[in-house]
Amino acid sequence: MQSYYEMSREELLEEKESLEAAYKDYAKSGLQLDMSRGKPSAEQLDLSMGMMDVLNSGTDLSCEDGTDCRNYGVLDGIEEAKVLLGDMIECHPDNIIIYGNSSLNIMYDTIARSMIHGVMGNTPWCKLDKVKFLCPVPGYDRHFTITEYFGIEMINIPMRSTGPDMDMVEELVSSDEAIKGIWCVPKYSNPQGITYSDETVRRFARLKPAAKDFRIYWDNAYGVHHLYDIDQDNLIEILAECKRAGNPDMVYKFCSTSKISFPGSGVAAIATSANNLVDIKKQLMVATIGHDKVNQLRHVRFFKDIHGMTEHMRKQASILRPKFEMIIDTFNRELEGRGIGSWIAPKGGYFISFEALEGCAKAIVARAKKAGVTMTPAGAPYPYGNDPKDSTIRIAPTYPTLEDLKMATDIFVTCVKLVSIEKILGESV
Amino acid sequence: MQSYYEMSREELLEEKESLEAAYKDYAKSGLQLDMSRGKPSAEQLDLSMGMMDVLNSGTDLSCEDGTDCRNYGVLDGIEEAKVLLGDMIECHPDNIIIYGNSSLNIMYDTIARSMIHGVMGNTPWCKLDKVKFLCPVPGYDRHFTITEYFGIEMINIPMRSTGPDMDMVEELVSSDEAIKGIWCVPKYSNPQGITYSDETVRRFARLKPAAKDFRIYWDNAYGVHHLYDIDQDNLIEILAECKRAGNPDMVYKFCSTSKISFPGSGVAAIATSANNLVDIKKQLMVATIGHDKVNQLRHVRFFKDIHGMTEHMRKQASILRPKFEMIIDTFNRELEGRGIGSWIAPKGGYFISFEALEGCAKAIVARAKKAGVTMTPAGAPYPYGNDPKDSTIRIAPTYPTLEDLKMATDIFVTCVKLVSIEKILGESV
Repeated sequence: MQSYYEMSREELLEEKESLEAAYKDYAKSGLQLDMSRGKPSAEQLDLSMGMMDVLNSGTDLSCEDGTDCRNYGVLDGIEEAKVLLGDMIECHPDNIIIYGNSSLNIMYDTIARSMIHGVMGNTPWCKLDKVKFLCPVPGYDRHFTITEYFGIEMINIPMRSTGPDMDMVEELVSSDEAIKGIWCVPKYSNPQGITYSDETVRRFARLKPAAKDFRIYWDNAYGVHHLYDIDQDNLIEILAECKRAGNPDMVYKFCSTSKISFPGSGVAAIATSANNLVDIKKQLMVATIGHDKVNQLRHVRFFKDIHGMTEHMRKQASILRPKFEMIIDTFNRELEGRGIGSWIAPKGGYFISFEALEGCAKAIVARAKKAGVTMTPAGAPYPYGNDPKDSTIRIAPTYPTLEDLKMATDIFVTCVKLVSIEKILGESV
Repeated sequence: MQSYYEMSREELLEEKESLEAAYKDYAKSGLQLDMSRGKPSAEQLDLSMGMMDVLNSGTDLSCEDGTDCRNYGVLDGIEEAKVLLGDMIECHPDNIIIYGNSSLNIMYDTIARSMIHGVMGNTPWCKLDKVKFLCPVPGYDRHFTITEYFGIEMINIPMRSTGPDMDMVEELVSSDEAIKGIWCVPKYSNPQGITYSDETVRRFARLKPAAKDFRIYWDNAYGVHHLYDIDQDNLIEILAECKRAGNPDMVYKFCSTSKISFPGSGVAAIATSANNLVDIKKQLMVATIGHDKVNQLRHVRFFKDIHGMTEHMRKQASILRPKFEMIIDTFNRELEGRGIGSWIAPKGGYFISFEALEGCAKAIVARAKKAGVTMTPAGAPYPYGNDPKDSTIRIAPTYPTLEDLKMATDIFVTCVKLVSIEKILGESV
């Protein structure tokens, strides 16, 4: 398709007029569509309803080692749950602590503990003048909210198609002792769907941090969330790679079943080195007697093993694939070559990111809103909600029905074109 | 019975000899009995197995307001769970936040938040030179472990039959700005089974703290854990009383269903004023997207309402009552009038506390251990594990079978007598 930048002023005005007519029709129809939320749809949740049947009043609720899961105890989770989640994230069960229902909560706790008690004997961060975190952008807003809440300064690191800009990461991490961590969603990243390349992971594992207590916060939220059965991204396992590189303690890996079973009623975990586990358990044994073992057992009995989980995720994929493909197809058909934005077709995860012309994201989101389509607020994928170029828009295809999503995508594309033309016309004045 | 203090040296030596013979018989029989753990027995847990049946794959898992409990969201808990727990602790549902599975974890979080972010705009505790907590003793060891972990200085407050020594509490709280809280188990207290008197609660509500951010940590762990149906202790509801006294923000009230349904797979909550809730939610929305709503729903569907829970607790009581009564009967029969210890017959809760002669608790616990009976370590019910008089022993009757418990109690009583006689003989040398 012809780039808008190659069109004459008259051609653009004509295009604008026809787009405005289409937009008005949408706006009049009183739609209420939502592309903002990274939530599974009811159809996806239905896939896990069998989980409600695996335990009943006649079931023996003791786990393999004989522990009665109904009672107190087992600080770090039942063994069979560690095995299942270990297989899910390619880590040894001994490197895992199973928590409650939320990996976000584990990350919060990890930062809180580092603030008050420090990391493996290092000075608690609350005693330091300055603590900084690196934030690959665009990224996950809730990560940034945690570090902001604790007064940690956030530094933007641009995302490339291979992951964060590693030149910048290496230089900053090795030169600034105040940098204590980096937020990563290494596979099917939120919001771009990028998987870190082998080189990126190897360079991560070989970082030489100025701060002894620097940790990589490796949020493996979408590790098994493939859209395709064969055409899947592969991510090098970071714990093993850090160990090989002589940095065994440098990473905390987080995961959960939130988008596998039920969000909010799943099981979350951390995987890390033996040294870090000792450090974490010192706190954990003060903070709780143990997490929900019955729910751990429920997950194990439902999925049985990693093959069961893989089969389950295949069913999820069959629901999600048409939604993702429809959006990418629409973008290809309507926006390809127009010169007004870019996107990546992800092979998994929960989001598509649209990179609009600079200064257009807020306007596009606002325009879509007026026509009844709610998008994630522009800026959300950046620390402090501040997208310096005002260009990134996160699209969440999972929650609406395919039909609703089609309509929403059409409206979105119309808004992208309209706002872009206005920008181009404004520039050419 | 005759006091050991009124017996002659010869009589004591004779008694000692016969006790030692009995003790040897016990020790030889290779018993492994446990009176240390405040855990429900399997028989109690069986009462809640119906909870595994209330939700199945055909159940609509949406709550009364239509929210799909399987998905993300609802930071502070589903309304019907707030109603149930509100009825349980006599608070309005609007004053409640439902958390995960552990009230201990809520307390930990509350202290952690106060440390880093402060209480309702006051200086974060980590910025202060000194933070102190009042600790009624004997009390719950895990409370003290939390405050110790955060470097908070703990001050012992003696427990009376009516609750903590309120003269001392009033004086300290009103004069020392560093005192930020007090740990309370106000009903069927751990370990003595004491319920705070009306006067005690009213005096609590009328405290005039030097610190604006002083809070009463009211751990209502045993609020519905009665042993009898009519002969129950009554505790004045503290939120309402604080409100009446003009101190609406002074209390955090904690509760859970841990010893009602399944420990570790129950539902926990905080109840407090609107102002405190706003303060707490600022943190909570950073720390999590929400807790396990399916489990909240499971509890509501199982208990139905507070009457259902009351009936359930009546069944629990019928299992616990014989255990508590057997111990008290044994103490009355074997120790009454001997002058070597005191105890209170509780009307609910999970523990009986035995007050031995000064300097004898550790020796009694050690002696019982040698004969195969594990008690809670002496000292545990005191901050830093330090019982200044070495006299308090916590007895946990719930977990063993009645038969095992009988044997353990006989051995315990024998050890009490033996160690006491040795002390008396030693003194009289």
